Amino acid sequence: MENTITINGRDLTIEEVARVARDKVTIEICPEAMKRVEASRQLVFDLAESNVPIYGFTTGVGWNKDKAVFKDFFQEYNRNLILSHCVAAEPEASEEETRAVMLVRLNALLLGATGIQPAIVTMYKELLNHGIHPVLPERGSVGEADISNCSHIGLAMIGEGEVYYKGVKVPATDALRAEGLEPIVLGPKDGLAIVSSNALAAGEGALVLQEVKELLEAADAIYGLSLEGLNGNLSPLDPKTHEVRPFPGQAYSAKKVLEYLQGSYLHSPNWKRPVQDPLSFRGTVHIHGSVRDALAYVEEYLRIHMNSSDDNPCVIVEERRMISCSNFEVTSWVIGFEMLGLALSHMSKAACHRTIKLSSPEFTKLPRFLSPADNVICFGTIQKTFTSLDTEIRHLSNPATADFFSVAGEIEDHASNAPFVVQKTRKIVDNLRYILGIEWMHAAQAVDLRTDIHLGKVTKALHELIRTEIDFYEKDRNLTIDIKKAYNLIKSGLLLKTIREAEKI
Amino acid sequence: MENTITINGRDLTIEEVARVARDKVTIEICPEAMKRVEASRQLVFDLAESNVPIYGFTTGVGWNKDKAVFKDFFQEYNRNLILSHCVAAEPEASEEETRAVMLVRLNALLLGATGIQPAIVTMYKELLNHGIHPVLPERGSVGEADISNCSHIGLAMIGEGEVYYKGVKVPATDALRAEGLEPIVLGPKDGLAIVSSNALAAGEGALVLQEVKELLEAADAIYGLSLEGLNGNLSPLDPKTHEVRPFPGQAYSAKKVLEYLQGSYLHSPNWKRPVQDPLSFRGTVHIHGSVRDALAYVEEYLRIHMNSSDDNPCVIVEERRMISCSNFEVTSWVIGFEMLGLALSHMSKAACHRTIKLSSPEFTKLPRFLSPADNVICFGTIQKTFTSLDTEIRHLSNPATADFFSVAGEIEDHASNAPFVVQKTRKIVDNLRYILGIEWMHAAQAVDLRTDIHLGKVTKALHELIRTEIDFYEKDRNLTIDIKKAYNLIKSGLLLKTIREAEKI
Amino acid sequence: MENTITINGRDLTIEEVARVARDKVTIEICPEAMKRVEASRQLVFDLAESNVPIYGFTTGVGWNKDKAVFKDFFQEYNRNLILSHCVAAEPEASEEETRAVMLVRLNALLLGATGIQPAIVTMYKELLNHGIHPVLPERGSVGEADISNCSHIGLAMIGEGEVYYKGVKVPATDALRAEGLEPIVLGPKDGLAIVSSNALAAGEGALVLQEVKELLEAADAIYGLSLEGLNGNLSPLDPKTHEVRPFPGQAYSAKKVLEYLQGSYLHSPNWKRPVQDPLSFRGTVHIHGSVRDALAYVEEYLRIHMNSSDDNPCVIVEERRMISCSNFEVTSWVIGFEMLGLALSHMSKAACHRTIKLSSPEFTKLPRFLSPADNVICFGTIQKTFTSLDTEIRHLSNPATADFFSVAGEIEDHASNAPFVVQKTRKIVDNLRYILGIEWMHAAQAVDLRTDIHLGKVTKALHELIRTEIDFYEKDRNLTIDIKKAYNLIKSGLLLKTIREAEKI
Amino acid sequence: MENTITINGRDLTIEEVARVARDKVTIEICPEAMKRVEASRQLVFDLAESNVPIYGFTTGVGWNKDKAVFKDFFQEYNRNLILSHCVAAEPEASEEETRAVMLVRLNALLLGATGIQPAIVTMYKELLNHGIHPVLPERGSVGEADISNCSHIGLAMIGEGEVYYKGVKVPATDALRAEGLEPIVLGPKDGLAIVSSNALAAGEGALVLQEVKELLEAADAIYGLSLEGLNGNLSPLDPKTHEVRPFPGQAYSAKKVLEYLQGSYLHSPNWKRPVQDPLSFRGTVHIHGSVRDALAYVEEYLRIHMNSSDDNPCVIVEERRMISCSNFEVTSWVIGFEMLGLALSHMSKAACHRTIKLSSPEFTKLPRFLSPADNVICFGTIQKTFTSLDTEIRHLSNPATADFFSVAGEIEDHASNAPFVVQKTRKIVDNLRYILGIEWMHAAQAVDLRTDIHLGKVTKALHELIRTEIDFYEKDRNLTIDIKKAYNLIKSGLLLKTIREAEKI
Repeated sequence: MENTITINGRDLTIEEVARVARDKVTIEICPEAMKRVEASRQLVFDLAESNVPIYGFTTGVGWNKDKAVFKDFFQEYNRNLILSHCVAAEPEASEEETRAVMLVRLNALLLGATGIQPAIVTMYKELLNHGIHPVLPERGSVGEADISNCSHIGLAMIGEGEVYYKGVKVPATDALRAEGLEPIVLGPKDGLAIVSSNALAAGEGALVLQEVKELLEAADAIYGLSLEGLNGNLSPLDPKTHEVRPFPGQAYSAKKVLEYLQGSYLHSPNWKRPVQDPLSFRGTVHIHGSVRDALAYVEEYLRIHMNSSDDNPCVIVEERRMISCSNFEVTSWVIGFEMLGLALSHMSKAACHRTIKLSSPEFTKLPRFLSPADNVICFGTIQKTFTSLDTEIRHLSNPATADFFSVAGEIEDHASNAPFVVQKTRKIVDNLRYILGIEWMHAAQAVDLRTDIHLGKVTKALHELIRTEIDFYEKDRNLTIDIKKAYNLIKSGLLLKTIREAEKI
Repeated sequence: MENTITINGRDLTIEEVARVARDKVTIEICPEAMKRVEASRQLVFDLAESNVPIYGFTTGVGWNKDKAVFKDFFQEYNRNLILSHCVAAEPEASEEETRAVMLVRLNALLLGATGIQPAIVTMYKELLNHGIHPVLPERGSVGEADISNCSHIGLAMIGEGEVYYKGVKVPATDALRAEGLEPIVLGPKDGLAIVSSNALAAGEGALVLQEVKELLEAADAIYGLSLEGLNGNLSPLDPKTHEVRPFPGQAYSAKKVLEYLQGSYLHSPNWKRPVQDPLSFRGTVHIHGSVRDALAYVEEYLRIHMNSSDDNPCVIVEERRMISCSNFEVTSWVIGFEMLGLALSHMSKAACHRTIKLSSPEFTKLPRFLSPADNVICFGTIQKTFTSLDTEIRHLSNPATADFFSVAGEIEDHASNAPFVVQKTRKIVDNLRYILGIEWMHAAQAVDLRTDIHLGKVTKALHELIRTEIDFYEKDRNLTIDIKKAYNLIKSGLLLKTIREAEKI
Repeated sequence: MENTITINGRDLTIEEVARVARDKVTIEICPEAMKRVEASRQLVFDLAESNVPIYGFTTGVGWNKDKAVFKDFFQEYNRNLILSHCVAAEPEASEEETRAVMLVRLNALLLGATGIQPAIVTMYKELLNHGIHPVLPERGSVGEADISNCSHIGLAMIGEGEVYYKGVKVPATDALRAEGLEPIVLGPKDGLAIVSSNALAAGEGALVLQEVKELLEAADAIYGLSLEGLNGNLSPLDPKTHEVRPFPGQAYSAKKVLEYLQGSYLHSPNWKRPVQDPLSFRGTVHIHGSVRDALAYVEEYLRIHMNSSDDNPCVIVEERRMISCSNFEVTSWVIGFEMLGLALSHMSKAACHRTIKLSSPEFTKLPRFLSPADNVICFGTIQKTFTSLDTEIRHLSNPATADFFSVAGEIEDHASNAPFVVQKTRKIVDNLRYILGIEWMHAAQAVDLRTDIHLGKVTKALHELIRTEIDFYEKDRNLTIDIKKAYNLIKSGLLLKTIREAEKI
Repeated sequence: MENTITINGRDLTIEEVARVARDKVTIEICPEAMKRVEASRQLVFDLAESNVPIYGFTTGVGWNKDKAVFKDFFQEYNRNLILSHCVAAEPEASEEETRAVMLVRLNALLLGATGIQPAIVTMYKELLNHGIHPVLPERGSVGEADISNCSHIGLAMIGEGEVYYKGVKVPATDALRAEGLEPIVLGPKDGLAIVSSNALAAGEGALVLQEVKELLEAADAIYGLSLEGLNGNLSPLDPKTHEVRPFPGQAYSAKKVLEYLQGSYLHSPNWKRPVQDPLSFRGTVHIHGSVRDALAYVEEYLRIHMNSSDDNPCVIVEERRMISCSNFEVTSWVIGFEMLGLALSHMSKAACHRTIKLSSPEFTKLPRFLSPADNVICFGTIQKTFTSLDTEIRHLSNPATADFFSVAGEIEDHASNAPFVVQKTRKIVDNLRYILGIEWMHAAQAVDLRTDIHLGKVTKALHELIRTEIDFYEKDRNLTIDIKKAYNLIKSGLLLKTIREAEKI
């Protein structure tokens, strides 16, 4: 993997956001893009000279749009704008998330539609490359746009507020000085340019999509092991059935699971198997496929968004004009996140039902609750655990996007609640790590209770991995600990690494 | 428009479903497709001869899948299957909807993946072409698949139950006789083949999508008139801003609204206009665009579904085998309908806010509540009407897809609730007809209160149309009547016809 | 039962509302109450003489509250007010519901807090006693108050609009004439007095509460029969356990079920019974008790409401003043209806689980799906039916009360959505009739499959009643018909009558 | 306030739970109650001798209820039961919450319905009085009962797992040793007795109710200050109007607010005041009253619950028998928490609307956004902050109680999700602290912008308190800091202390 990513405003991907956010990959700005930024800035000055009133430049913003701003007060006005837009509430975004937010905003600025001071563009890059991460409380935005939060990044840039730097929360000015960076002196429109962006939701959203992708790989692989635990049928994975009804997601998951199960005993006929397994097994790849289909929708729109300008007004350099517009209006992908949450809710329900089935002698012909001996209770009560976590997912999957007030003197009478929708999707993903972790515990236990079976290429690796942390359940023990361990194997990325390595063999 | 549609299982569109359902267009079956049907049937017999147990053919279905069915009892068993699967609840689907359901099922059968008796395939065609519409109660399915309901179509085919025929509910046998049709004699697998299909949800769903498409045209046009009522800005429609952030739906709506407003006074500069209008006006095409984006997703998946087989087991003629599968698992598009409902909820909220703004002198510089004179109350209380209808939409937009039980001996432990999700989307659309109708009433009144303005090419026709039914509000009158009239102009298709004709000028 | 009810504004009960609404019991007005009405009217005139501006009397209403209304125009103004408040949408309330609405409004007027013209008070009574029922569309109100709908009753009173009369929809004026009634001539404040009331929600709500009460009797009795179908334990009904944790509702239900089961074979020891039944059986009276507890809350607050004034302004005769107030604010009982919906959702879920258990040999030791013979499919697919109806209930139980807009120039920035919340509770009740009906079908079949058992005093009557309409399931048949019949036995009140008569024996 | 509370199982109150949890008040056990505990234990042994199979004593629990447990293995079996019931997930309950949970369980044990070893009863007391707080992960229960979590308290009692002790997480055994306590040796039924309880939900629930009570005091007082900021009408507080429609909660809030406003300038006539204020002001005490009414319902049922036994089986000492029962079924108060959440959602919406109004010159005649000068932006963007926090509340107010799976071999087919419902109510309360804090900031600013006004007795103290932490907004500043400060003034109890002290003057 490359250690540097060059961005130009046009082709940033979800994966790149994740790499910059998590792996601290270095950013470079495409020089041509920087020229657009400069041209755009020049145009704004030219237009201001000609006394065209420019929203947020020579006028106030929001309900104050009728108030003029005079040139002598540009710096003060823009500092005031940033300060007065610091109206967020905790919790704070993680440093990874803050990085994603800054990267997404930086990339959009490169389109030259903002008219921002070029030094600020550079400052985003510097903060990222120097590891200076403004404290960014993540609540307080209705998504139209994330001005309550993005303001905190501006705060750090002008040497106010606090940042995380080398793992500690310090005054922004200290971190800037330590890295030899000068605070920004704000010029016209800079305040608006910094705050007026959906970057909070888009940046956090990009990371959530990456997490969903990774979760899907884990879910497909764990399902493979569960199918071995059940002694289930492979027929729902038959590629022909996915040709007959070609939904792209399900075909992909089916293909992956078949790969994971290469060499598995399930390929051999076994007369103990019933004709058909419960739907939670039979329809798994269809359900995972629905998550993939929903994901594809959201990713497409978020990708467009990340490589577009959400500025208002929008500078059209080639036509030498600025247009008042509403490209901060992101309902198209916010409803996609809501749909994704519903798909994940289905995935969760199916995982729960599979896990319940793995505990049921009627379906496995193994002991009740996968108990290794008569006097061991084993996985009895744990059904409450994963189903209660599913209840939370069901609750989180309720929509929030259309619940908003009419604010700012009734002018801002629409909103998407983009950040909150993204954040609740993130929570769904986290709960699913527990649920899939517990399915994995069951699948491994079921597989261990069977003798003389061959596991698949990847499912075998899965089984080995969980056994490095969690022993076969021989006698009753504190399962709260096991649950956390299984969760951590997924959360840490270790499961993913294992799957990918095993696949290559 | 053609009076006959030839179907082949591969390329049925939403529009064609609507035409067959509503306009009673005649159906032909592609002869090659019919050959696939016959080959498929033959294969099933061949396999049965070879004593492979075939789900629903030589075995029972669901939890009874372990019970064998013997050849002598094929007819009785299959009749029993149909009868015992008649477990639906009212209300009844409309005749249009029943036609859509039958067409969708018929089209899927033409893929030859079912193994059904060819005479039954022909019977679907006959019922459609002869206007015999089985009574079809539309509740009772969890969408996995719509066996509780589709059974009622089978009932009519064997000459039992009731049908609508020439506008009256009569015994099926009477209608068949009147049209010279013989009841079907059921053979093996026929019962399952008739009942096991998502055709209820897919057929009703196709009609809902068509309604959404038509509603979008109405909404774009009414928004145009509202913008004229407000004396609002055209800048958010500027094509350049949609190039800068290229979400397909918003660009399309913006283009349409600009067309509708050709020649409008809004194109002339007017210093009374504020720099920016409220978001409900400024973001309208973005919000309508979100509906279009969501629609595109659902339509894509529903189109694939309609031209695929949702049968289980699935007959693969070319490989001479049957595969147990789960292609009745339709979560991918059911969650799309949920997303569409959320998009429509946004559209509804924005329409309500625009309508409120049209009543507000602060935004229009027209009299409060668009009252023509001081002693006239006009549109005061009506704000409660449309906002209460929006409350219902907000409620309908809550998801239902993942709320299901584990049934059939715990084997059917997943469901999508496809029919209910489709039906609640249909209700959202219907409420929106009221809400948009009321917006239209306001826009027309606002436009009338302005003097010396030119309306756009299409918005002018809209204004004229509403004035054929609803007079300018001069003195207080019973608005319940006006509301119903405006609703009817939309529901009847008259508004749509007017838009399309005006566009062509 | 008495054929006349005398009302005085202070002690109207839910049961009385039901009797007047359903049984067309005659109304009398307590003469003393009528005197309060007259005194109140006089006071309003006295105050108006003294030039105190009185909201809705000498001023406009809502956002128009700053506009003066002059004496010469009282009639015209009040007619205009009624007309312009006719802003409702279909469907229409049933005639029973319209009666309940009128009665509730009439009763509140008797407190003398309104200042309405006494002739209008009398007119409510006349319409009720003469069976003249204004057409009352039931949507369009946000519950603050139901002015969009109540206006339609005023319309009929002044001889405009339409009414149901002797089963036909006719012009109001025709019905009034036929019964020798003169239309009302509106005076000051009369318009507001007629429209400004929560009577739609309160009247429909009172009927819903009565339906819930009746449903609870049915549910307790059907549960009794189900317990006999299961061969279940009586221990959860033990009065001692309800003393130990004294929630009033559960104790009541337990007591009733024990009565219903007097003489049942369940009282005899039976070693085939497991120690404990599934929670859906073991916790039934607790769950029904939760419905009773929720009902008690709502009934208490609705009773207070029905015997209070929700007028604004409020006339305080004894202090000779009028006070602007907010007693149309009814959130306290609207949230009670939401809670009741949740309780009913639990009741529904438990009924579904019991019915599933009755089909399961593991729990009943009876044949799978209660099938009488090996080749009969019986209650296989029907599990989809009742669980899909439960899915609707789950959806209906989502709250709607806090989803409102700020309307009327931002002055009406709170609402309760009382009518919609009541109406969705009504729908929950109706779905439960199907679900309980299907449980009853199962319980009766299970009981028939057992030999030599004695049923309880009331459960025996229940079994006999269902068998008058629905035969023992011997061979497969169209169950859609049976489902409707079972529903009708509950809906018609026949089940209730049977329970009550059997109890008396 | 007393430093010791003596409990007897019969009269524990919400306030006492709060005092023990928060203020570390010492617990004593009523000796008579301890005798009941001993008698109950003896009875269990007597019954076991007589070979009556006793659920959870001589049999397994849940699906394992058919397995016998033999006497020699009591300790091992019960330890295994506790271990295998440790199936919880993070986050951890706070130490305060853990104390509440232990107290609630302890109190219920004193009824003698459990049959637990008396030494364990004493151990609850010791842990509380010695400040040893088991680590208690709060997720993993479906509320039927909280066995996944309560097990962790048992773990600490037997000297396993971890506890918080003097502010640090240490092994349980260390803390016990440090305080001279011996670990418990488990006997028969002790495992079940420890885990089988709703104490998690009930304990946390009691604290939430206490928080709601305190929040209501804050909300009433802040509303008083807001009314002064608005220059609003007192007429909706008129006691007479609350006699006319006597809902208890609204009358109480009205009375309190009038007290808080003693001496306020609002009592003097002021011709600038409109006849009526927006509903968010006019209906405040009605809406706060609805919260009070809902609270009264929940408190009543939770109080009964806390002073009852939720054990299964239930020991009836006086009748010398044990009864299998379902008193862990707590739907009655769980739906009350759901209702309370809806009431709080209304309260939140009204607070948001009041705050919006305080920024609007149309309603206050003060500068837009309460800005002190033309070039100060002030409270413009903050409307997004509090409305976005309300959106979260709207989302949290969606119900979760009826979303559960059928688990434990289909035997546990009902649940209430009590802990999650309580926990989401807790989150609603926390968000409201922000929202009310921001309302307070607005009210104080509005009051400061008015000159020559007298504040009320308590509202004056409120104004002074906020000014100790947050200055008058003179020039733009980082409001994220102010928001947190206002929140902390409420969260810390300082506001409450101030109100109560000012009231006494």
